[in-house]
Amino acid sequence: MGEEVKLHGMWASPFSRRVELALKLKAIPYQYIEEDLSNKTPSLLRYNPVHKKVPVLVHNDKPVAESMVIIEYMDETWENNPFLPRDPYERAMARFYAKFIDDKLLPTLAKLGQTAGKEKEETIKEIHEQLKVLEDKLKGKQFFGGQRIGYLDIVAMILVWLHLTGQKVLSTEKFPLIYEWIERVMKMEVVNECLIPEEKRQDWIQLAQRAPKSASN
Amino acid sequence: MGEEVKLHGMWASPFSRRVELALKLKAIPYQYIEEDLSNKTPSLLRYNPVHKKVPVLVHNDKPVAESMVIIEYMDETWENNPFLPRDPYERAMARFYAKFIDDKLLPTLAKLGQTAGKEKEETIKEIHEQLKVLEDKLKGKQFFGGQRIGYLDIVAMILVWLHLTGQKVLSTEKFPLIYEWIERVMKMEVVNECLIPEEKRQDWIQLAQRAPKSASN
Repeated sequence: MGEEVKLHGMWASPFSRRVELALKLKAIPYQYIEEDLSNKTPSLLRYNPVHKKVPVLVHNDKPVAESMVIIEYMDETWENNPFLPRDPYERAMARFYAKFIDDKLLPTLAKLGQTAGKEKEETIKEIHEQLKVLEDKLKGKQFFGGQRIGYLDIVAMILVWLHLTGQKVLSTEKFPLIYEWIERVMKMEVVNECLIPEEKRQDWIQLAQRAPKSASN
Repeated sequence: MGEEVKLHGMWASPFSRRVELALKLKAIPYQYIEEDLSNKTPSLLRYNPVHKKVPVLVHNDKPVAESMVIIEYMDETWENNPFLPRDPYERAMARFYAKFIDDKLLPTLAKLGQTAGKEKEETIKEIHEQLKVLEDKLKGKQFFGGQRIGYLDIVAMILVWLHLTGQKVLSTEKFPLIYEWIERVMKMEVVNECLIPEEKRQDWIQLAQRAPKSASN
């Protein structure tokens, strides 16, 4: 096929790491280019002139930016190991909850490190309500995608990051199904390859609290 | 077929009106329920418990929320008059720019009414840069979707609203291709049916400036 796949990414970006996970789940060979966000490569700026952010997937010289757009592109281009369900209604539900994680949960999580006192308490309450929505989605299921890891599981990896960085907001008692899911996905080698290395977890917490939405999408 | 399609919407919501346009473009008969956002119907709250917002499409009793999720669902359920192109890369580009309009342009436009002085000048500069991205997308094309109205055109209808409400930020001189596109789509009856009635345009400007993102998605 002579296909060339490159990924411009950054270790600390959950958006970038979810594209890496998607590439690994589809078993697509790719070249990885780690970007220094304070000194981005000319290629990144050329490939993503609109946002100038990671991740950017470059497939046969054609760039695609925005992690969720990349993942749908991959699913339509490489049909093995499909991420989205076949049924249009199930597909809509997967997209709805993926958007919920990116547009609602992530901004609320970002507020955690920036608030204190009563405002922090309210933020925690809001996060609990949002996590409850995801907990309910796991009822009777092994994965968000059903019997196997899928589109919504890839997006939900941020829950594993929360767990790994010891965020108390994600408590085992309140969210037992999320915890079972975390244990289940962490047993998968491809998932482990796309998490934050142990020695970098403290750095990550600081990075995430400083610039939650500015570095990547 | 015995299909039942309902839309819970609101006249002033561009998100709701874009779903109406999509229904009309696919020639799908539907029942429209106008929501009073200060006194929402119990059905809306039951159908969209996560966000409690319009638009919600209810297809044979199954609800779908979030305008872009609804439009992709419609495109996968009713295959006539496809919104998205067939080619995966072109599909990715349509999704990328739709997301750009919703996640970048709309929040910047919302800032217009909330800023003054130097901050307002910077907001206008930012909007011009964002509109330039869309102007460039129209080079050599009749519609954002190419030869016919498509997915990105439906999302870009907000540009027609800007024009109709006399927002000076969208100047004919700076954005001639956007203006040609506005003239082209306004000649289509289905588009005109999904714009704001003339007598409500002043109300809309005030509504949009007061609560740009809270009423709908």
